[in-house]
Amino acid sequence: MSNGVLVIIDRPAIGQAGPGEAFRVVSDDRPSLRATTLAATRGDGIFETAAIRDGKVQAAAAHLARFTRSAQMLDLPAPDPAVYTAAIEHGISLLPDAADAAVKYVLTRGDEVDGSVGPIGWAHVHVSDDFSGARRNGVRVVLLSRGYALDVVETAPWLLQGAKTLSYAVNLAALREAGRRGADDVVFTTTDGYVLEGPTSSVVARFGDTLVSTPAEAGVLPGTTQEGVFGYAASIGLATAVRELRVEELAAADALWLTSSVRLAVAVRAVDGVERTVDEAFTAAVNAYLIARTD
Amino acid sequence: MSNGVLVIIDRPAIGQAGPGEAFRVVSDDRPSLRATTLAATRGDGIFETAAIRDGKVQAAAAHLARFTRSAQMLDLPAPDPAVYTAAIEHGISLLPDAADAAVKYVLTRGDEVDGSVGPIGWAHVHVSDDFSGARRNGVRVVLLSRGYALDVVETAPWLLQGAKTLSYAVNLAALREAGRRGADDVVFTTTDGYVLEGPTSSVVARFGDTLVSTPAEAGVLPGTTQEGVFGYAASIGLATAVRELRVEELAAADALWLTSSVRLAVAVRAVDGVERTVDEAFTAAVNAYLIARTD
Repeated sequence: MSNGVLVIIDRPAIGQAGPGEAFRVVSDDRPSLRATTLAATRGDGIFETAAIRDGKVQAAAAHLARFTRSAQMLDLPAPDPAVYTAAIEHGISLLPDAADAAVKYVLTRGDEVDGSVGPIGWAHVHVSDDFSGARRNGVRVVLLSRGYALDVVETAPWLLQGAKTLSYAVNLAALREAGRRGADDVVFTTTDGYVLEGPTSSVVARFGDTLVSTPAEAGVLPGTTQEGVFGYAASIGLATAVRELRVEELAAADALWLTSSVRLAVAVRAVDGVERTVDEAFTAAVNAYLIARTD
Repeated sequence: MSNGVLVIIDRPAIGQAGPGEAFRVVSDDRPSLRATTLAATRGDGIFETAAIRDGKVQAAAAHLARFTRSAQMLDLPAPDPAVYTAAIEHGISLLPDAADAAVKYVLTRGDEVDGSVGPIGWAHVHVSDDFSGARRNGVRVVLLSRGYALDVVETAPWLLQGAKTLSYAVNLAALREAGRRGADDVVFTTTDGYVLEGPTSSVVARFGDTLVSTPAEAGVLPGTTQEGVFGYAASIGLATAVRELRVEELAAADALWLTSSVRLAVAVRAVDGVERTVDEAFTAAVNAYLIARTD
């Protein structure tokens, strides 16, 4: 079954020489990767997932900037933003319906066995899943320890906290643990009591007239959708702050959201089984703003 | 460039029904995985790497047992040992020279986009790299924090410590950090001062007449080669102990090794730049034992 348009990027890095075009379209329901690619054998690469609305990638520059930052953290060659942009736009142009779609794009290091293979990338453009139910109903979350103290970004950068790598087995295991506990999603916490992020989302909290999210210095991904939420907040006169957030502050927050590029802002309606008030009007308004976003 | 024999295992799990054979041989220098496989997009799967000597997989049962244990930790379906064994043996039979080879075998969860795709596995059999230099000369290691306390295996099993997953980006980042520090390899430590393992090896220490390695309960992989080293030790009248090992004990150890299936036992000749005595005779003897191993 074909699910979308797959563009293999044979020359994803800046300055990478080689014959032919930088990218090519292949069928996404046929094999396109070698079994020895470091993406599949070691999770050794990086990715971004972005929403596409009406044929345009949302927050395209913010995603590419984060992609470049992840490459630096993994000592990967710098991905070429122009090549990725062209590859993604070409993929979008071939999608039958790009009104509500998404793209996942990847850069991997090469091949585990064949040293003659350099970095390879790809972009997969596909129609988006329908997340309107989660946006309307919110999600139940559990707090799970990420096992790290807040300062590992500085003290142990090889742990790659804050890089968006292909090594997401722990993120998925945490989501399965949430399911076992009757919840839908996870908020990771540090061993010293700070809020981090979800496995595939940022955390945004509202305290009175201020929205708060957690800083990249804490080892979270800079949230491209969280930035959009803050843009909305500014447009309606709310204050915003990026600061460390203690776990015990969550109970006092007036509202909580998980934000991500495709699902957008979903209200947290329970934390560890304790029900919370959900601000349905604000959630609907911020999602309308995010869907209409054209930056 | 073809590097070996690749066997795709279409039905890797116990009780998995389907048409045709459970596995098939494909070219390893051509694509065999979809770009949407969870192996490549999320590092969501498990693996084992085993040595092949004279056409036989070494410690075959121990590797398969650890593979099954990893599957349980990731809530994957149980891999079928008979299918994997047959696939690997078939791959070996097609390798021109299986005197000194290795196999990497994998189980992944399925496809990120196409829900009709179930678990998929593969086994890649190839001639081994030459590690005789490292066995003779030893390696320089640095101690790097794994960021976790010793007890995360019990308190936070979703962190998957002790599972051999495809999400190895941190392990590879640690090895690059070792290179930046002028070393060859890494010994991971806990935040509370315990020795864990290397990114792709176990740690074995000798104190007088006793060899010591670290327990699976500490979140390390049960080392199949470490078991072989302990078997050698017993055969020459040395005592062995699996116990927690404090970082400060390393300085007092009479000798240290990193052990792994293909590279075997390599002596640690420096820790964080401090030179150590290397027992060349013992190292050569234990490697001769490991190479001749037929269990």
